Amino acid sequence: MARFPFSAIVGQDEMKLALLIAAVDPSIGGVMVFGDRGTGKSTAARALASLLPPIMVMDGCRFGCSPDEPRACPGPCEGKKASKRAVPFVDLPLGATEDRVLGSLDLERALRTGEKVFEPGLLARAHRGFLYIDEINLLEDHLVDLLLDVAASGENVVEREGLSVRHKARFVLIGSGNPEEGELRPQLLDRFGLSVEVRTPREIESRVEIMRRCASHDADSEAFSQSWAEEDDKVLHQIARGQKKLGKIEVPDEVLHDAARLCSAVGVDGLRGELTLMRAARAYAALKGAKAVKRDHLLHIAPLALRHRLRRDVLDESGSTARIERAIAEHFK
Amino acid sequence: MARFPFSAIVGQDEMKLALLIAAVDPSIGGVMVFGDRGTGKSTAARALASLLPPIMVMDGCRFGCSPDEPRACPGPCEGKKASKRAVPFVDLPLGATEDRVLGSLDLERALRTGEKVFEPGLLARAHRGFLYIDEINLLEDHLVDLLLDVAASGENVVEREGLSVRHKARFVLIGSGNPEEGELRPQLLDRFGLSVEVRTPREIESRVEIMRRCASHDADSEAFSQSWAEEDDKVLHQIARGQKKLGKIEVPDEVLHDAARLCSAVGVDGLRGELTLMRAARAYAALKGAKAVKRDHLLHIAPLALRHRLRRDVLDESGSTARIERAIAEHFK
Amino acid sequence: MARFPFSAIVGQDEMKLALLIAAVDPSIGGVMVFGDRGTGKSTAARALASLLPPIMVMDGCRFGCSPDEPRACPGPCEGKKASKRAVPFVDLPLGATEDRVLGSLDLERALRTGEKVFEPGLLARAHRGFLYIDEINLLEDHLVDLLLDVAASGENVVEREGLSVRHKARFVLIGSGNPEEGELRPQLLDRFGLSVEVRTPREIESRVEIMRRCASHDADSEAFSQSWAEEDDKVLHQIARGQKKLGKIEVPDEVLHDAARLCSAVGVDGLRGELTLMRAARAYAALKGAKAVKRDHLLHIAPLALRHRLRRDVLDESGSTARIERAIAEHFK
Amino acid sequence: MARFPFSAIVGQDEMKLALLIAAVDPSIGGVMVFGDRGTGKSTAARALASLLPPIMVMDGCRFGCSPDEPRACPGPCEGKKASKRAVPFVDLPLGATEDRVLGSLDLERALRTGEKVFEPGLLARAHRGFLYIDEINLLEDHLVDLLLDVAASGENVVEREGLSVRHKARFVLIGSGNPEEGELRPQLLDRFGLSVEVRTPREIESRVEIMRRCASHDADSEAFSQSWAEEDDKVLHQIARGQKKLGKIEVPDEVLHDAARLCSAVGVDGLRGELTLMRAARAYAALKGAKAVKRDHLLHIAPLALRHRLRRDVLDESGSTARIERAIAEHFK
Amino acid sequence: MARFPFSAIVGQDEMKLALLIAAVDPSIGGVMVFGDRGTGKSTAARALASLLPPIMVMDGCRFGCSPDEPRACPGPCEGKKASKRAVPFVDLPLGATEDRVLGSLDLERALRTGEKVFEPGLLARAHRGFLYIDEINLLEDHLVDLLLDVAASGENVVEREGLSVRHKARFVLIGSGNPEEGELRPQLLDRFGLSVEVRTPREIESRVEIMRRCASHDADSEAFSQSWAEEDDKVLHQIARGQKKLGKIEVPDEVLHDAARLCSAVGVDGLRGELTLMRAARAYAALKGAKAVKRDHLLHIAPLALRHRLRRDVLDESGSTARIERAIAEHFK
Amino acid sequence: MARFPFSAIVGQDEMKLALLIAAVDPSIGGVMVFGDRGTGKSTAARALASLLPPIMVMDGCRFGCSPDEPRACPGPCEGKKASKRAVPFVDLPLGATEDRVLGSLDLERALRTGEKVFEPGLLARAHRGFLYIDEINLLEDHLVDLLLDVAASGENVVEREGLSVRHKARFVLIGSGNPEEGELRPQLLDRFGLSVEVRTPREIESRVEIMRRCASHDADSEAFSQSWAEEDDKVLHQIARGQKKLGKIEVPDEVLHDAARLCSAVGVDGLRGELTLMRAARAYAALKGAKAVKRDHLLHIAPLALRHRLRRDVLDESGSTARIERAIAEHFK
Repeated sequence: MARFPFSAIVGQDEMKLALLIAAVDPSIGGVMVFGDRGTGKSTAARALASLLPPIMVMDGCRFGCSPDEPRACPGPCEGKKASKRAVPFVDLPLGATEDRVLGSLDLERALRTGEKVFEPGLLARAHRGFLYIDEINLLEDHLVDLLLDVAASGENVVEREGLSVRHKARFVLIGSGNPEEGELRPQLLDRFGLSVEVRTPREIESRVEIMRRCASHDADSEAFSQSWAEEDDKVLHQIARGQKKLGKIEVPDEVLHDAARLCSAVGVDGLRGELTLMRAARAYAALKGAKAVKRDHLLHIAPLALRHRLRRDVLDESGSTARIERAIAEHFK
Repeated sequence: MARFPFSAIVGQDEMKLALLIAAVDPSIGGVMVFGDRGTGKSTAARALASLLPPIMVMDGCRFGCSPDEPRACPGPCEGKKASKRAVPFVDLPLGATEDRVLGSLDLERALRTGEKVFEPGLLARAHRGFLYIDEINLLEDHLVDLLLDVAASGENVVEREGLSVRHKARFVLIGSGNPEEGELRPQLLDRFGLSVEVRTPREIESRVEIMRRCASHDADSEAFSQSWAEEDDKVLHQIARGQKKLGKIEVPDEVLHDAARLCSAVGVDGLRGELTLMRAARAYAALKGAKAVKRDHLLHIAPLALRHRLRRDVLDESGSTARIERAIAEHFK
Repeated sequence: MARFPFSAIVGQDEMKLALLIAAVDPSIGGVMVFGDRGTGKSTAARALASLLPPIMVMDGCRFGCSPDEPRACPGPCEGKKASKRAVPFVDLPLGATEDRVLGSLDLERALRTGEKVFEPGLLARAHRGFLYIDEINLLEDHLVDLLLDVAASGENVVEREGLSVRHKARFVLIGSGNPEEGELRPQLLDRFGLSVEVRTPREIESRVEIMRRCASHDADSEAFSQSWAEEDDKVLHQIARGQKKLGKIEVPDEVLHDAARLCSAVGVDGLRGELTLMRAARAYAALKGAKAVKRDHLLHIAPLALRHRLRRDVLDESGSTARIERAIAEHFK
Repeated sequence: MARFPFSAIVGQDEMKLALLIAAVDPSIGGVMVFGDRGTGKSTAARALASLLPPIMVMDGCRFGCSPDEPRACPGPCEGKKASKRAVPFVDLPLGATEDRVLGSLDLERALRTGEKVFEPGLLARAHRGFLYIDEINLLEDHLVDLLLDVAASGENVVEREGLSVRHKARFVLIGSGNPEEGELRPQLLDRFGLSVEVRTPREIESRVEIMRRCASHDADSEAFSQSWAEEDDKVLHQIARGQKKLGKIEVPDEVLHDAARLCSAVGVDGLRGELTLMRAARAYAALKGAKAVKRDHLLHIAPLALRHRLRRDVLDESGSTARIERAIAEHFK
Repeated sequence: MARFPFSAIVGQDEMKLALLIAAVDPSIGGVMVFGDRGTGKSTAARALASLLPPIMVMDGCRFGCSPDEPRACPGPCEGKKASKRAVPFVDLPLGATEDRVLGSLDLERALRTGEKVFEPGLLARAHRGFLYIDEINLLEDHLVDLLLDVAASGENVVEREGLSVRHKARFVLIGSGNPEEGELRPQLLDRFGLSVEVRTPREIESRVEIMRRCASHDADSEAFSQSWAEEDDKVLHQIARGQKKLGKIEVPDEVLHDAARLCSAVGVDGLRGELTLMRAARAYAALKGAKAVKRDHLLHIAPLALRHRLRRDVLDESGSTARIERAIAEHFK
Repeated sequence: MARFPFSAIVGQDEMKLALLIAAVDPSIGGVMVFGDRGTGKSTAARALASLLPPIMVMDGCRFGCSPDEPRACPGPCEGKKASKRAVPFVDLPLGATEDRVLGSLDLERALRTGEKVFEPGLLARAHRGFLYIDEINLLEDHLVDLLLDVAASGENVVEREGLSVRHKARFVLIGSGNPEEGELRPQLLDRFGLSVEVRTPREIESRVEIMRRCASHDADSEAFSQSWAEEDDKVLHQIARGQKKLGKIEVPDEVLHDAARLCSAVGVDGLRGELTLMRAARAYAALKGAKAVKRDHLLHIAPLALRHRLRRDVLDESGSTARIERAIAEHFK
C-alpha cells in the first residue's frame, strides 16, 4: 500500500513547516510534537520522508555511509560502489533496548571468533534520515538525553562492553507526546530545536475531508498518491532549493538584536533559545528563497523555536504560544 | 470435548456483533471487552474462532504464511505445498514474556551452530486468527502498546538481541478486563477499535437456560454441538458474505458528516473515533448485505466504536453509553 | 511413621465434605480453606490422599500418564507396562520457582546435547492427585492465576524459553490462608470451586480428644492407623460410588431455578456461582447415592459453593455464611 | 581458646531450661529467644552444643548420616565406617543465600561433567545438631518459614533448578531477636515450639560476677573450663536420662484437661499451643526423672510453650508472661 | 569543524578563572559549575582542553603513561617510544556504567584465553586531561563519590571481579548541574575544590555578540579560530608560567590567618575550606606571576573556594556568594 | 610522597587515644568515629598504621600469615621463608562488592581448571592491620554486621558458592560517619568497641597551625616527616610496651564494681558495655605502664567505651558524653 502523500494532509500547517525547516537544516536539533492522540503526528513525518529523493549509500556499508564521506566510516566500507536507497525513516519501537538503539557488541561473533565487532543500532540506521519516537515522554530520561546528544552532534559515541566506536548519525529527531500524560523535564525540552502543537481539527468540514481522503486512500492508495504527486513535487523542490541556499543566507545585525530582545522579553533561560531562533529563521528564509533573514522570517518561526523554552510564569496563566505572540505584538508591531 | 457453539451462547448480543465486525474487517483494530468476571467473555471469542473454516498454510512455515503471500515470509517457506489448518486462537498466558510474545533469538541454535535464527513468538502464531488477552489491564503498558501496534499494522517488527525481523501478524486482538480493577490508560484504550460491555444476565430464565445448556454440553458435547450446527452455519455465511462485499461498500458523504457531527457532539479527541466509526459502519453494512452505508448502520454501531474514547465530563455523571445514546437521540432522531 | 487417618480427625466436617466432593468431581475447581493457624488444614488433605487406592501409572513416564490415556503424553511413554503408585500429594514448597511449578527447559541436557527437552514440574507431579498450597495469599497473584487456570482446564500449557508443551494436569487444588493476613483478590477467589472455614474447636472435650489422639499416634502410629482402618474404608467406598454415579445424576429444572434464585438473592456476580452450585450439588448427590439432585442437596452445599463469591454489602455487616443461610431461610423454607 | 562452659553462665535459667527441653525432644520445634542485645544469647546455645558427647557420622557422607539410618541418605554413603564428630552448631551467617541454606546444584560440576549433583547446604550441616539464627526478625519471612518447616518435619525437600532432593535435617532451631526491632509475624512465631525472654541482669553482684568469669576465661580458658567440668557433666547426664525416658512417660488425662483449660483461659488460637504444652511437659518430666507428667510439670513450662502464642488483648495491657501466670493462679492454685 | 576558541567566549569570567586555577594545580580537586541550561558550560572546558599543548604519551600504553613516570604503569608499557597526543577531554556519557568508568575485567579475553586482564576505563582515558560530567546531580551518589576520590588522590584503585589494579588518574574533574534540579549532598559538594556560578547574560549586547560569534564560527570555523589564536596563545603562556612557578610560591602566615578568619566568619565546617583556600590562592598568585600569596589573591578567589561549603543559615536568606562578600567587607576592608 | 606523621596531627586527642588502645588490644572491637566532614578522620588512622613497625609475613601467602601461626592458613603456605611487610591499611572502596570484601570463588580458575579455589578478599588483606570504612552509615547493614562479626571474632568464615573457607582476619576496624547523615542502628553501634567524636577546631591558632603543617608537608613531605620522627618513635614505644604488658595487668574487684555501677547509672543495655569498659581500661593501663587497672584509668576511657551504647532518655536532652561525665561526677568524685 502506498504511503499517504505529504500534501494530502489536511491542515497541520505548523507541523509541516517545522518538518520542512528541519529537512533544510538538520543541525537545528529535532522537532517535538505536542498533541492529542490520533491526530496523525507520525503520518506527516513519514510522508515527508517518503517524498524525499533517494540517497546514495555505499554498498554493504552497515553505517549507511555516503560516497561523499568515505573516511568517516568506522567499519571498512567494503563495497566499492554506491547505490540508491530510500531516505531512512526509523520508528523507535517501544521497548527497544539501549543496545539496539546505540548499537552493541556483536555477541555471537565475539563468542564464535573472538573478535569484538560493533553491531550498528537504530541510530546508525537512521543516519541521513528521520528518527521518530512516539510518546517520547514514556522513554527513560537518560535515553532521551542520549538521543538528543546524538541528534545535536550528528555523531554516536559508544563506550560500552569494551567497545569504543564513533560513527556519523545525522538525522532529524521527531518526538511526539501528549502533555497531559506527564511532561519531559525542561532540560530535555530545551534541547529540542523546534516544537509544534497539533490539535484535533474542530470544523466539521475538515473532519469530513480527512475521512474522505482516508476512504479514497483505503480504496486505491496508488491512484490516491498519483493524484497528489504534483503537489508533493513542489514541496520537494522547495526543500532542495533551501538546502542549497542555506550556507549563503546572511543574518543582519538588526535581526540578531530582534532575536535577543524577543528572548529577553518572553524570558528564555540560556542561550539555546536565541541561537535556535537565528538558525531556524535562516532555514526558513532559505526555504522561502530569500537572500537574507528578515524580521518577518524571525517572527514567523519564533513560536516554533521558543515555545518550549519559556520559564513558567505564575502570574501569567496564558499558554506559551500566547505569551510569545503578545511579546511580538508589543515589541515588534 | 467439543467447543461450546457460538450460536448457543445466551444473550451477549453486543459482544457477538463486535466479534463479527472484527471478523469481517480485522483492520478495525481489536475489541476491548469490559465486564464482570465469569460472564463467558472468552467463550464467545473461542466459539467464533472454531466456527470459521480452516485456512491454507504453507507446510512447515513457522510464520503461518498463506499460499497467497509467499514473498512476505522472512523464513524460507520451505514447504512447496500448503495444507488446511484451523483458524488460530492464541490465549496469551499470564506471565508470558516479551520474548515469547514477539519472538526471539533461538538461543540454543545460536550457541550450537553460531547462526542467528529468529524463533517466532505468539504474534506469529496468532497470524490470521485471534489473540485473546484476559485481564489486559494487568499487563504492562508497554506490552499492551506493542500488541496494539502490531494489531493495527498487521506486522511485527523486532529489534532485539541483534535481530531485525519483520513478519506479517494480522489477527483480531481481543482484550478483556474488569473496569473495577483499574483501567487502561486512555491512550491505550483509544487504540482499540471497538469496545463492548458484558454484564451478568439478571433474568432468572436466562440464567437457568445457561445452566441448562452447560449441563447438556457437559453431558455430551458432541451431540450438543451437532444440535447447533445449523445456526452456526448461518453465522459463517454471513461473515463470508461480509468479507467479500466489504471492498465495494460506498460511504456516502452524508454519513461522513453524521460521523463527524456525532464525534463532535459527544466529545471525542483525535481522529481515530470517526475513522473507526466509518470503518465499523462499513463492515456492519457488509455484514448486513447492504450496498452502501446508511445512517442507521452508523448509529447502530456507534456505541461500540466510540464508548471508550469519550473524554471524562465532570458535569455529566452518566456513563459513556448513555451519553452516546443521548447525543444520537438529540442530533439524529 | 504412618499418616494420621482421615477418619480420626476430630470435627472439621465442612472441610471433610469439601474434600470428598472435590474427590468425586475434580473439575469443580479446587478448595479454598480459610482458617486459624494450627488447625490441621493440611492434615485432612494429606489424610484423604493417603486413604485413596493407588493409581496405575505408565512405567518411566515423567508425566504420570494413566494407561487409559496413552496418547495424551507429550513425552514418549517409554514404558510398555504400568505399575501402581500412591495418589500424589504435592505440597507446593514456599519459594518454589515458577520454573519448578510449570516445568522448564532441561538446561543441562540442552547445553550437553543441544536437545530442547521439557523437564516436567510440580504440576505434572500432581497429576491425578492433590496440590496443596499453604498460605496461598502469600503467593504472587499471577502464579495463583496460573495454578487456577491449570486446575480448571486440567491441562498445563507452557510457552517459555522456546518451549511449547502441553500436558495433562488434573488435580484437586487446595489452598489455605488466613483471611486476617490479607485476602486474595476477588477475581482469584471466584475461580476456586469451593471454600470452607475452619476454626479452632472451642469445647474442652474436643481439644482433649485431639491431644489424646495425637499422643496415641505419637506413641505408635501403625497401631493407631490400624484402629481407624475400618472407618477409612467406609469413606473410600463412598467416594468410589460417587465417582461411578456422577455421570448419571439428573439435575431437574426446579433445582436449576433454585440455584439461579439463590445466586440472585445473595448477589453473586458472574455465572461461575450457579454453575459451581449445580456441579457441587450433583457431586454431593452422587456421594449420597441419590439418582437426581434435590433441593436439599443444593442447599446443603450452597455455603461451600457461594461463600467466597459474595459482593461486599456495606449495609449488611454479617458474614458471607450468615447471608447465605438467611437467604436460604427466606426463600426456601 | 576453649568454649565458655554451659554451667558457668550466670543466671539465664529460663533459657537454659528451654535448651535442655529441646535437647531432650527436638521435635518440639525450635526455641525463640527474645532479648536485649549483648546478653549472651548465643553463648548459652554454643555452650550446650559443645557439652554434648560426639556423634557417630558415616565417613565421607555429605549429609552427616548416622550409621543407624544408612538408607535415608540421598547420596551414596560412600564410607563403610563411621567416625566420631562434634555435635554440629551452625551459625546462619547474615546474608547467607537461600541456595547455601537449602543446598543447591553443584554448578561447577554440572558445567564440567554434565552431571546434576546436589551440593548440601547449611541445613544438611546442622543435621543432628543446632542451627542458630541471630536477629531472625531481619531474615526474610519466606526463609524463616522454610527453616521452621524443615525444623518441624526433620526433612529438607528441595525443588529447584531441576533438582528434587530430600534429606534428613533434624536439628534444634534457635532464633534470637529483639522485639523492639520489629516482630516476626504471629504465624511464624506460632511455629516455634518454645520461647524465652532474656534480660540484662540488674543486680550489681551478678554483673560483677559475669565480668569476673569473663576475665578468668580471657586469662586461661582451658583452666577455666576445667574448673566447671564437673557441673557440665551433671547436665550431660540429666539430658541423657531424659532422652532415654521420654518414650515411656505417661500423660494422664487430667493433665490434658489442664492443658486445654489453660490454653482456653489465656486465649491461644489453633491447636499448636496445647500440643506443644503436652510435649514440653513430657520432656520436662523426662528431664526431672519422673514417670508421668504432673500438673506441676505442665505449669512450670507453660510460659515457655504459650507466651508467644497469645492473642493481643486490647483490654489487657499486661505482658504475655503475666497473663499466663495470672491464668495459672486463677485456675490451678 | 574547529573547536570554539577559549578566548572567544563572551563573559563567564569566573568560570574561566576557575578552569585556569585548576589547570595550574589539578590537585585542588575539581570544579563544580552551577548554572542555567544552555549557557555554554561545557564549551569553555572543551575550549581550554584544546588550547593546551599536546602531551607525550608512551606508544601503545593503555593507561596514557607519560615517559616521565614509566614505572607507575600497571600494564607493561609496551612501546619504547613516546608520541604526542592531544590533552584528553573525556565527556562522561550518560548511562556510562561503573565498569566503563573504572575499568573492568576484559571478559572476552578472560573467556578466550583464561587470562585476567584489566581493561582501562574512562578514568584512565582522562589521565592528564579533563573529565567533564554534565548534570552530575543525576549521577548516583556513590559514582560521584568514586570520581571525587580518584580526582583527589590522582589514583584509581579497583577491587572488583577478582581484580586488584591501581593506576594513575590525574585529571581536572568538572561537574555541571542546575541547582533547581536537586542538589548534590553537602558531603559531595564539599569535596569539589572550586565552584562557579554561570548565568545567562542579561545585556542585549552580550547576547547579540554571542550570536554573532556563533554565526561566524558556523560559517567558517577555521577562519574564526585563526582570528582568536593570538589571544589563546596568551592564555597558554599564563598557564605554563603558573605551573612552573607554583612550587615556589610562599604563603605568608598573615595570609593563613586571613584564611582561617574568613572561614570562621562565614561558617565553614571541617578543614577542607581553608586548605583549598590556601591552595587556590597559591595557584592564583602563580597565574598572576606573583612570588608570594597576598591577601588580595586570597580574597579574589574566596567565593570560588568557599561558596559551596557554607552551612545553611536559617536567619540569613542571602545567597552564599553574598554572605562571603559581606564577610570580606566586614573583616578585611 | 611521605605520609603525614601521627604526631604532627593537631589536637584530636580522643581519636588518637582510641587508636592507641585499639592498637594495644585489637580484640576490643573497632573504633567508630563520629564527626564533621573534612576533619582528617582517616589521616590519623593512616598515620598510625604507617608508624607501626613492619610485620613478618610468609612469602607468597595470600592470607598474610605470620610465621608464628603457620597452621592456621587455609591455603598451603607455600613460601618457606617470611619477609617484612608494612602493616596493612585497607581503605574499603565505596562500591566494593561483598565478594571482594569477603573473598570469593576464583571464577577464572574454576572455569579453566575445574578447581574451586578461594580468592581472598579485603578482609584477608587487612589481616594484622587496619580496615578503614568511610561513611560506614552508607554501607548496607548486613555488610556492616559482617565486618563487625569478623572484627570481633578475628576470623572470616565464608559460606558461598559451594565454598567453605575459614581464615584469620584480625584487624582494627575503623568506621567513620557523620551522625547528621543518618545513624547506624543501635544494634550495630553497640558492637563497636569504642567511639570518638571529632570536631572542627574552633581556635584560629589551631586552624592556622594545621594549614602551616599541611603547607610544609606539601612543600617537602620527606623533610616534614623527618622532623616528626622522634615524636612518632615515642608513640611507637608506648604501644609496644602496652602490647607486652597487656596479658599481665590485673583488674581488681573494686574496679569491676565501679564498671558495673557506672553502666548501671548511665543506663547501658546488655553486657557489652561493661565488658568493653573493663578491657579498654586494661589496655589503657597497659599503655600507661601501670601494673593494675585503677579507677582513674576506667573513668578516663569511659566516654570512649560507653558513649554509643546509651539508651535514649527522653527526659534528658543532654548528649551522651555529658550524661557519662555527670554520672562519673555524681558517683565517683
